[in-house]
Formats: sequence, C-alpha cells, structure tokens
Amino acid sequence: MSFTLPTYHEPDFTQELFEQSPDASFQKADKDGVAPRGFHSTSMFPEYFKVNGCWVLAQESRMDCLVALDGHDELQVVEARRIKRGDRVVMGRTERGEEGIYVHATGFRTDGESLDDKFVFRTGRSRETAFSRDYDKLYELLRYEREHGNIVFVLGPAVAFDNDSRQAMQLLVENGYVDGILAGNALATHDLEAGLFKTALGQNIYTQESVPNGHYNHLDILNMVRSCGSIEAFIEQEHIKDGIVYAMLKQRKALVLGGSIRDDGPLPEVYANVYQAQDAMRSVIRKATTVICLATQLHSIASGNMTPSFRVIDAKVRPVFIYSVDISEFAVNKLKDRGSLSATGIVTNVQDFIVNVAKGLGCR
Amino acid sequence: MSFTLPTYHEPDFTQELFEQSPDASFQKADKDGVAPRGFHSTSMFPEYFKVNGCWVLAQESRMDCLVALDGHDELQVVEARRIKRGDRVVMGRTERGEEGIYVHATGFRTDGESLDDKFVFRTGRSRETAFSRDYDKLYELLRYEREHGNIVFVLGPAVAFDNDSRQAMQLLVENGYVDGILAGNALATHDLEAGLFKTALGQNIYTQESVPNGHYNHLDILNMVRSCGSIEAFIEQEHIKDGIVYAMLKQRKALVLGGSIRDDGPLPEVYANVYQAQDAMRSVIRKATTVICLATQLHSIASGNMTPSFRVIDAKVRPVFIYSVDISEFAVNKLKDRGSLSATGIVTNVQDFIVNVAKGLGCR
Amino acid sequence: MSFTLPTYHEPDFTQELFEQSPDASFQKADKDGVAPRGFHSTSMFPEYFKVNGCWVLAQESRMDCLVALDGHDELQVVEARRIKRGDRVVMGRTERGEEGIYVHATGFRTDGESLDDKFVFRTGRSRETAFSRDYDKLYELLRYEREHGNIVFVLGPAVAFDNDSRQAMQLLVENGYVDGILAGNALATHDLEAGLFKTALGQNIYTQESVPNGHYNHLDILNMVRSCGSIEAFIEQEHIKDGIVYAMLKQRKALVLGGSIRDDGPLPEVYANVYQAQDAMRSVIRKATTVICLATQLHSIASGNMTPSFRVIDAKVRPVFIYSVDISEFAVNKLKDRGSLSATGIVTNVQDFIVNVAKGLGCR
Amino acid sequence: MSFTLPTYHEPDFTQELFEQSPDASFQKADKDGVAPRGFHSTSMFPEYFKVNGCWVLAQESRMDCLVALDGHDELQVVEARRIKRGDRVVMGRTERGEEGIYVHATGFRTDGESLDDKFVFRTGRSRETAFSRDYDKLYELLRYEREHGNIVFVLGPAVAFDNDSRQAMQLLVENGYVDGILAGNALATHDLEAGLFKTALGQNIYTQESVPNGHYNHLDILNMVRSCGSIEAFIEQEHIKDGIVYAMLKQRKALVLGGSIRDDGPLPEVYANVYQAQDAMRSVIRKATTVICLATQLHSIASGNMTPSFRVIDAKVRPVFIYSVDISEFAVNKLKDRGSLSATGIVTNVQDFIVNVAKGLGCR
Repeated sequence: MSFTLPTYHEPDFTQELFEQSPDASFQKADKDGVAPRGFHSTSMFPEYFKVNGCWVLAQESRMDCLVALDGHDELQVVEARRIKRGDRVVMGRTERGEEGIYVHATGFRTDGESLDDKFVFRTGRSRETAFSRDYDKLYELLRYEREHGNIVFVLGPAVAFDNDSRQAMQLLVENGYVDGILAGNALATHDLEAGLFKTALGQNIYTQESVPNGHYNHLDILNMVRSCGSIEAFIEQEHIKDGIVYAMLKQRKALVLGGSIRDDGPLPEVYANVYQAQDAMRSVIRKATTVICLATQLHSIASGNMTPSFRVIDAKVRPVFIYSVDISEFAVNKLKDRGSLSATGIVTNVQDFIVNVAKGLGCR
Repeated sequence: MSFTLPTYHEPDFTQELFEQSPDASFQKADKDGVAPRGFHSTSMFPEYFKVNGCWVLAQESRMDCLVALDGHDELQVVEARRIKRGDRVVMGRTERGEEGIYVHATGFRTDGESLDDKFVFRTGRSRETAFSRDYDKLYELLRYEREHGNIVFVLGPAVAFDNDSRQAMQLLVENGYVDGILAGNALATHDLEAGLFKTALGQNIYTQESVPNGHYNHLDILNMVRSCGSIEAFIEQEHIKDGIVYAMLKQRKALVLGGSIRDDGPLPEVYANVYQAQDAMRSVIRKATTVICLATQLHSIASGNMTPSFRVIDAKVRPVFIYSVDISEFAVNKLKDRGSLSATGIVTNVQDFIVNVAKGLGCR
Repeated sequence: MSFTLPTYHEPDFTQELFEQSPDASFQKADKDGVAPRGFHSTSMFPEYFKVNGCWVLAQESRMDCLVALDGHDELQVVEARRIKRGDRVVMGRTERGEEGIYVHATGFRTDGESLDDKFVFRTGRSRETAFSRDYDKLYELLRYEREHGNIVFVLGPAVAFDNDSRQAMQLLVENGYVDGILAGNALATHDLEAGLFKTALGQNIYTQESVPNGHYNHLDILNMVRSCGSIEAFIEQEHIKDGIVYAMLKQRKALVLGGSIRDDGPLPEVYANVYQAQDAMRSVIRKATTVICLATQLHSIASGNMTPSFRVIDAKVRPVFIYSVDISEFAVNKLKDRGSLSATGIVTNVQDFIVNVAKGLGCR
Repeated sequence: MSFTLPTYHEPDFTQELFEQSPDASFQKADKDGVAPRGFHSTSMFPEYFKVNGCWVLAQESRMDCLVALDGHDELQVVEARRIKRGDRVVMGRTERGEEGIYVHATGFRTDGESLDDKFVFRTGRSRETAFSRDYDKLYELLRYEREHGNIVFVLGPAVAFDNDSRQAMQLLVENGYVDGILAGNALATHDLEAGLFKTALGQNIYTQESVPNGHYNHLDILNMVRSCGSIEAFIEQEHIKDGIVYAMLKQRKALVLGGSIRDDGPLPEVYANVYQAQDAMRSVIRKATTVICLATQLHSIASGNMTPSFRVIDAKVRPVFIYSVDISEFAVNKLKDRGSLSATGIVTNVQDFIVNVAKGLGCR
C-alpha cells in the first residue's frame, strides 16, 4: 500500500457564520518587537482572516506568531521580536469568526472520523505502544516525500555516537531522503571527530574503546576546524570521506547549526546568536513537509514550535508531518499537545530507529 | 569475524597459597531451610573448595546459595530454602583460600587485559552508548550458540504487544535460536490473544486500533484456555497458527510461566507457587549458555540471580553470557553489579531489539 | 480548609431506561474456575444489576471479576479463578441497562463539573506537574481517613533503603495513619536488616557506606528469621526496636507479604502462592478507603487491579482514593486508565514523598 | 555536627619528580581563537605549571581551557575562543611533571581514604540511593556557605511551575542562601507569569486549573516586559511582589539569563549570543563555592563545564561543591565523570528537593 496525501477541506465560507463575521481588526505596533495589547497569536493550524470582506489564509504560518499586513496588504506571519513599529497587527483572541479570525483545526479530517481520532496522539506514546505500523507508514511517507516533498531531520548528538546510526544517517542523505538538517555544535563536532579519528569524545564509535588522552580528540577537532576557518575547508584538508556533515556538504543540502551555552569551540558555522539561529532554522522548516526529530529536547522543541501542521504548495494545502523519536516518554510526549493527526511519537533509542529507517528504505 | 569461546584458566593449585590452605569446614544444618550461622554463600563465579586436600569446583553454581556435600561426598549448590536438616554445609566467608574456599573471578581474563577491563560493564550503559558492535557480537554469539550452546530468552509482556516484534520472536524460535523461554502469565496471554484476535488487551497489535469492548478479548482468552484445560488444547481447538507460545510448543521447547500477584486468570500452566516457579526456571537456566532478558525487571532480576557466569560442559568451563535489554538505564544497570565481562546491557525499546536480532541473523 | 467527602448520587431508577430494562440474566458455570461464555466482567465503578425487577448494587466490587448469585440470592463479586461449578453468573456486555446491567461511572460527579474534569488524570502526570495542592489535599484526606476511613500503603523496597523515609513510614504507622501494608519479601527483609545492622543489602542506610562482606547482612537476616520461625519471634529475640515491620506488628496492623520469583529466603510470612497472596491482599483492600502505592510496579498494579473506586459503609457509598507515587512517569501513568477523579499520580522519589507526608501531618 | 571545610594538601614540590621536571613550554597562538597544535587543556582540578623553575598554580581555572601567560607573566585560564593572536599558550599533554605540568587531583583527600573513595560518585546515583545524609550534609554546607562562601543555583523552568517550590526558592533568596542564579528565558517568564496571573503557561501553579485562552498569559507577559523595556520596570509597573526573579532583583543578586533556540520573546535581559551568555555565567561561577543545578540538562551541563573543583580565597585553596538534582538518573549521572568528592547527585523531583531544602534550613 503506498502513501496518499490526505485531502484538505477548506471551510465553506458561504456559511452564515462566515458571512456575518466582521473584518479582522488591525492595530499598529508602536515599538519594534512589541505587539499591541490584545494581539492575536497564531496556532499551528491553517488560519483565515477576513480582510476587506474576503477570507484569506495566512500562508507560511507557525505557532505563537503575530499576523501583520505588509506593504502590499498581504498577510505575514511574524515572530513578535521581528515586528516593526508601524506594522499593522491582527487583534483578537477568538477563533470562530467573532473577530474575523477563523482557526481551521479539522481541515484534514475525513468524514468518517470521529472526534476522538483527533486526539489519538494525545493519549500518549509509551515504550509499550506497538510501533510496527508507524515504521511502515514512515517508509511510505519518506518515499513519497523524496519525490514530492521536503524532509528535514533534527538531530541530537547521540546519532553520531554510534557507528551504525552515523552510517545510516549518511546513507539517508546520500539516497536523497534528507533536504535539511537542524542540529547543534556537538552533533557536527562528534561527527567530524568520527570522520578523522573514528571516535566521539575520545571513545571509538564502534569498539567502544577509550583512546588514551582521548578527550583531546574532541578539542583538537574544534581547534583544527577553527584553524581552517570552515568545516568545508577542514573536510578537504583532512580528506574526510564519511559522515553526516560530509554527506550534507557534498549533496549541498542545508545544515543549520544552532549555538547553545553548552558548546565548546564552537565550530565556525555555528550561530552564536540564538535568534538568528531560529531565523535560519525557520527558513529550512518553512520548506519542510516532513520533520523528524531525534534525541534532542532542545532542538526538537525549538523545531516543533516553528513547524506548522500544513504547508501551501502550488496553492494547495497539504499536511506537514512531524515525528518525535526519543527514549524518554517525557521527551516524546512534549509534542503531544499539538493534538494533530500529523504528529507521531516513537519511544526508542534513536540508534535503532535510524538504522531501521535506512534499512526499511533499502538505502545502501 | 566469527565467534571464539574465551578460554578458561584454572587456578594454579600448586601455588603455596592453595597448598597451605586448610580444608573447607562443614557444619550440619539443624533445621530444614535454615543454614548454620557463618555459612558460605556462593557468587556467580567459579568457586573451588578444598575437600580432603583437593580443590574441587562446585559445578552448576549460582549466586546466593549454600554449598553442601551430598551423600556421595559431591558438592551441591543449593538454595537455602531447599537445604535439609543434616546437610553438611560449607562454612566461611573468605574467598582466597583462608578457609578452604577460593572464588575465581578472573578465569576468563586474558593476559593482556588490564584490571579495568573487568569493570567495563560497571561503568554503566546509557542511551548514548554506541551499541553497533554489541549487536554484531551478539549475532556471532547466537550463531555459535545455536550449534554449540543453549539460548534462553526472558520475556516481558511488551514483546507480544507489537506485531513485528512478536513475529521476530516467533522466527527466532523457528530458526533454532531459542532453547527456552522464561516469562509470565501476561506474555503468554497477550500472545495468545494476538493469535486469536490480532489484539493485545483489546488493541490491534499492528494498527493500534482499539476494538470496542476490547478488554473482553483478554478476559475471554484466559477463560477459554482455562476451559480447555491447557494452552496446548486451546491452540489446537482454536487453530492458532502463529505467535511465540505456538512456536515454542510446536518446537517442543521449554516454556516456563512464573506466576505473580499481578496475574489475572491465570493460564493453567502458570506456576502459582513462586518458589516452584524458581525451581522450574532454574532447571532451564542450568542448561543455558546465553541468557537474553527483555523488558521485564521482575523476570530479568529473578533470572539474573540464578544465572552463573560459567557452565561446565564435558568437563570444560565456559562462560555464560547474559544480556539485559530495556528502555530504562535503571533497569539495565540493575545487572551491572555482576561485574562480569560476560554481562552486556543494551538500552533501547525491545521491539526494535528483537526485530534487529531476527533480521541480523537472517531469520525468515 | 478541611476535607469533605464527595456525595454519591445514586442513579434515578424511576427513569424509563431503568424501568424498561430486563432483569439481568444468569448462567451456571459448568467448571470450577471457568465462566460461561459471554460473562459480564466488572469495572472499578459501582454496578447495579436488575434482579427480580429491582436494581441492586454489587457491593465489595473490584475490576475484572464475575458477578454471581450466592445461596441467599445475594450478588457476589468473584475472581474467575474462584468461581465454582454451578455458580449462577451474570451474563452480558452492555452497561446501560440493555441487559439488566448498569455501570455508574459518574456517581461522585457534582453538577457544575464539565465532562472534561473526569479526564483530568488521564492527561497524564509528569515531573513538571505542579504537585503542591496534591500534597495539601492528601494531608487533609489522611487526617480525615485516620478518624473515619482505612488507609492502606503499598510499599516497594526502596522505602526501606533510606534512613529518613524508613523512619517517616514508621512514624506514620505509630501515628495511626496506616491500617494495612501490602509489600513483598524484599521490603520486609531490608527493613529488618536496617533494624539489626543499620544496613540494607549491606549498605548503611544513612551514611551510604558499604560494610565489608555486607551482602551477608541480607542473607543472615533471612536465615535468622527462618531459624526463628517467624518475624515476630526474630524481632523479640534480636530486640529490634524500630522500623516499618516492627511498628506494624506492635500496632497489630495487617501486613501482607506477597511472594515473587525475585525473592530470596523467603521470610516465613511470605505467601509462596501468588493467588493466595492476592486473596490476602484483597481482604485488606476490601476495607481500604485510601490506598497509597509507593515505588513498586508489581505491587501497585496488583493492588490497583483489586481496588474499586468506591466502598459501601453503613449503606452509604463513598469514594476510595488511590495514589500512585513513582519516579517514573511510565509507572505512575499505568494507573491513568482508571479515568477516575479519585486517582492521583505523583512523580517523585518516594523517599521525599514519604518524608514530606510524615512532616505535613506533624508526625513525630 | 557542623560543617568543616576539607583541608587542601599542596603537592610537595621538593620531591625529585618536581625538581627534575623541565619548565612548561609555551607557544604563541597565530590566529585569534585558535590554539597551537599540541596545546594543553585544563581539567577541573588544581593544576601547577613550572615557570622559571617555580611551580605556579593556575587560579580561577575551569575545564577544557587553555593556559596562557598574560602581559605580567601571570597564568591565565582562557577559553580557546577567547585566545588572541600572540598569546603564549602552555603546550603538552602529560600531567605528572614530564612537561612542566602537574594536575593535582587528590589535594583534598585525607590520609585515611582509600583510593576507592574517590570514585564514590562514579558508581552512579539512582532512585534507590539513600539520600538522607546528603540532605543533612547539604543543610550544614549551605549554613556554612551563607557566612563564608558563595552559593549559585542553576534553575530549570520546572522550579517556577509549582507554587510551593517557587515560594521555597524565593525564601532561600530572601534568607541569604542564594548569591547568583543561572537560568534561561523560560524560568524567568514562567516566574513572572506566576507573579502576575498565578499561572505558568496558563495553568494555575497551585490548583492546576487551566485558564481559558491561558497560553496568552505567557505571551502577554513576554510582550509586556518587552514593552516595559526591562524586567525591573515591569515588576515595578505591575506591582509584582513575589517570586524568584522579584526576590533576586530586590536583593540585588546576580541573575544571568542565557538564551536558547527554544525561547520565545525573549525577555530583554536574555543573552541572545550564547558565548556572551557563557562569559556572563562564568563571571558568576568564578565566585561560586557551591553550585546547585536543578532540573535543567542544558544549563546544568553548561554550568558544570565551567565549574572547577576548587577556588582560591585569600591564598587558600578550598573545594567547590556541586550538586546535580534531577528526576532522571541519566541527567544526574551526566556529571559523574567529574570523579570528584565534591560532586553529589540526587535523583528526585526538584519541587520536593527545593521545598525540603528551604524547610531544612528553617527559611520562612
């Protein structure tokens, strides 16, 4: 059985509810980075705003943002910190047309579905959930997305700690299943250390043996890349021929490294300013149709926050799928309040997950 | 690289230490199930006792037991509750010959090994340990053991909750990789429910859909098996053709179901008396050369307690390997105090583990 | 603010629904321990059965049991394994009167409550839930129950591993807050070891120091109690003057020790047969109005299974409160499917919990 | 029993080992932020360098840094990213004088201590460790440090999610037990939301009730503070009178908020640049003698990395104590590789921990 994209049902704007609704109201921001009191904040769902009597979908949306009219009277979804003095911001905190705002949470629901289906994910995933079908569906989805969508991985450092998972991730990149990676300084540093020394933090990623004075491997990698001035120059100079970072650069795919207070080094490509990092991440997520988050609470939640439940492609609304994979139920279920059909949690060690996925897709 | 059994090095009993050691002393138990004060208690390692001037290995040992001379002056390793009034019990709490007792913890250690290697497992396994090589080693080991050893699985109920892991476990049985299974009432009940209804506790083990009134599936299975009088009769009557229990019965392999206070039903084969259950488990473990414990603290610790680090086959001492696989570091590391080279912890969801193992061994 | 018992609202049996309902149907069991096909199984809620035109509440109910008419035509709630050939068993799997069975899940709900309130517990408790008010409510509840109810603790071994929590538990017993304890061989053995040697498994429960050869402390305690023939005789012989077991025996309160396959020893009082253990536990739970489960999946789930949401005292129906306290969300949320207002999960280390509770109640 | 500071034993530099050691060698950095190949990297222990024939302690040290001679020929411990072209950097990767570098890991060890004591923390802390004495020692330590030391808390957001723990933390500040707090945008935002609305993320921090449209509380707080221009101005304008942030500002204590990619808002005081955040955190940690990390992997590891095992006050070397408190063994044991007597892990819910500590110190 192959994958079929769920159909989106636009609201029927001929209903009285929508006809009688007033236009959305706007108010000008009077300070940079500050919204007028009573601002409307977006959800992850498609949202429509009545402007000049017409219901308009705010495209490229995401959670917890303002909606503002730009110079061409187009609706823009903007993080509050990026609002400018004078921007016209949508006001109101109702969702069913009362103030010209309509949040459409059920656009992908098929007729047969009961209300409860919506809450499937909410019931929580645990180590005892049966994940066989989630894997099978994911394989179908990724095959579809490789041709028609855009797949973004969000990676915690553990993916590079293990020989087979690092290799599997590389294979996924080389087989076209990865359009972007969001990660941090540690993932890239461990991966490059494995490329040069076969170790991560001084421990062999296959044999588990600790090299004497091995922690210097980590520090030396950071120093060498900084000396080279860029990851790319380092890879060339040291003839690195494997790994996640290597594959991403070779395939010319987007790799965003967001900085954190845990970093040492850092590598030159790491964003020191976390809000610039958010903007860079968002520019990758904006194109994503499937997002897979592996073993990183920090990056997963950051990415989840900026991932909407839908994307508009060629004037058609399609769902954005999001996976959260972690060994901790607590971490996996952090995403559960999305309350969306398109969110899937899998509770396992990401090493096994990523190896499974590469095998399941026949990567080699 | 294929598997090679580590060589056992017997102590050199010509050393002065052993020559000068006194004979082990014995004292008679004066009550059933009660040891004389000052009794010696066994470890998981090979232990030698000086009897009539000769150092004798206590065979078929296990942790926390008494050593007693039987009617033929042979050393028997006996659980305290099974000691009989009049049994002659080894006394003493030293381990280096002072009282005729020698615990040989390093028999499998090769010359090159540093002292630290012994403690490899002790350092703790976590979700961030690199497990690639542990998997590869396990495949080699199991191929070897299928021909030359005896493989026992200890299963928590979660193995039967998921379609693919249940199938993988069945394949392992059918491909000869399972000589015995130790589990509880729940594992068998869920597995039989899946065999008849495709559900576990009323939830489809592949689609995750909950059947209306589905909890009756569980209760009905228990009632039906009880009505049939045995699992075997039930499987025949209901034409069950898949699953773990089915495969074990068909292959005529040992399946021990130990009772617990959590049980409902129970199935007729379940041991109501937990100490009889221990005896039945021990009779399976006694033959084991590799023990793999999956997602059950109760059964894993019970099995771990009765699994020694060695077994004597054809007068040769070989190691017994033990694996503990669980999604919780806490559960996995419960075994770490074994301090043995032969204990391996893997932190992951057992669904993935068992599917990996079946694939890695080429089972179909 | 002091505690007030929620009022129970009986169904209004004058409604047409109830008038038109047929009598419940009964069928005779034709084998011991086996129910007729199509049997009705109880929930944790109050359930009414129409017998001879009258709606009768099955008292002393619990989950997953059969309902049978005894010799006096009274309804008895019976575990399937205890049913006898010839017993007349209620048949049917509907809950709204269709077959003379009515399950009353909302009897304690007050008018103002929205439907969602019922699901409060279901949303899951995590380490990030605010527990302040749960503690405060628990103090009020326990003060009330000391006077008017019956408090049962279900204890995992960890409670006896720590000096302060062991002492706090003893104080709760001595201050009248404990009417019964359900636990296993390990809890009692560790507690007695602490009483004699100040250690648990050979480690000082206050200083954490490991005594040389300390594991013998554990084995010696088991052997000594077995030699004495009973815990009581041992406590007297060895002049034990503190601890949980000591306090329970002194206060003549019910202490049920259920056996498990993990046990060593065991202590003489431990039930070897787990179904006899269940019966003994049930006899304590039958009287309970509040049940507090601490850090034991095995005993907590076993106890939870046999704890109904209500109890009838002096012909009045009142709620039974149940608490599940564990450091693992997974363990705590195992109880969540009870979907009952009276179930509370707290995610923390039970050492802190029990010390807090003793302090909060002013025990000394 | 009150607290006594462990005595530091300087190495005996008259030993031949030290006499024969060469001077440490230095090499000039030839790029900003890049060390010469073969650089020495610091540990958390006191380290001595032979300069002009004298052994000199590098003060204000921390892990993973370079050591450089400044303009006055004084040793400076510097993060690699802060090194400047021309700085003279210590070279060498030996620790026992071979290259003029001596790492003194055992300076606080008393004579009686066996080697193993050093590894006490390494054995890992779990939910079953007995923590009574750790609490008692901590109370003594904090009383001592209030008079003679400097106490820094590192806080995850969960501390502000619960009424009692938020209040307890405030009391600790007001009673003089807190000299600095390191945290993130979320902790401060939740705390201010509780101050104004009694909620955190829209949920009442005492009653757990969710306010309708409650997520706007969070967004409004961020917007209001941004509108005010500073936390201080917001607190004054809105008459906030309780909470952690309020107390810190009132006591004029250091509060460093490090930014992360998870942030929304952010509050104006949050460091957008994570390396500037590290510098600000380090300036607080530099003065710390006790560091207590609560429920935040991100901030705890960041802080742990920059916390040495010692501090020099009035030319005397004293230990720096570090606590890691988390509900997850995995998180707690992340610090275990410090291998230091002065590191303590406690596995519990931080709500209970912080309430216990405030009560144990008699704060009101």
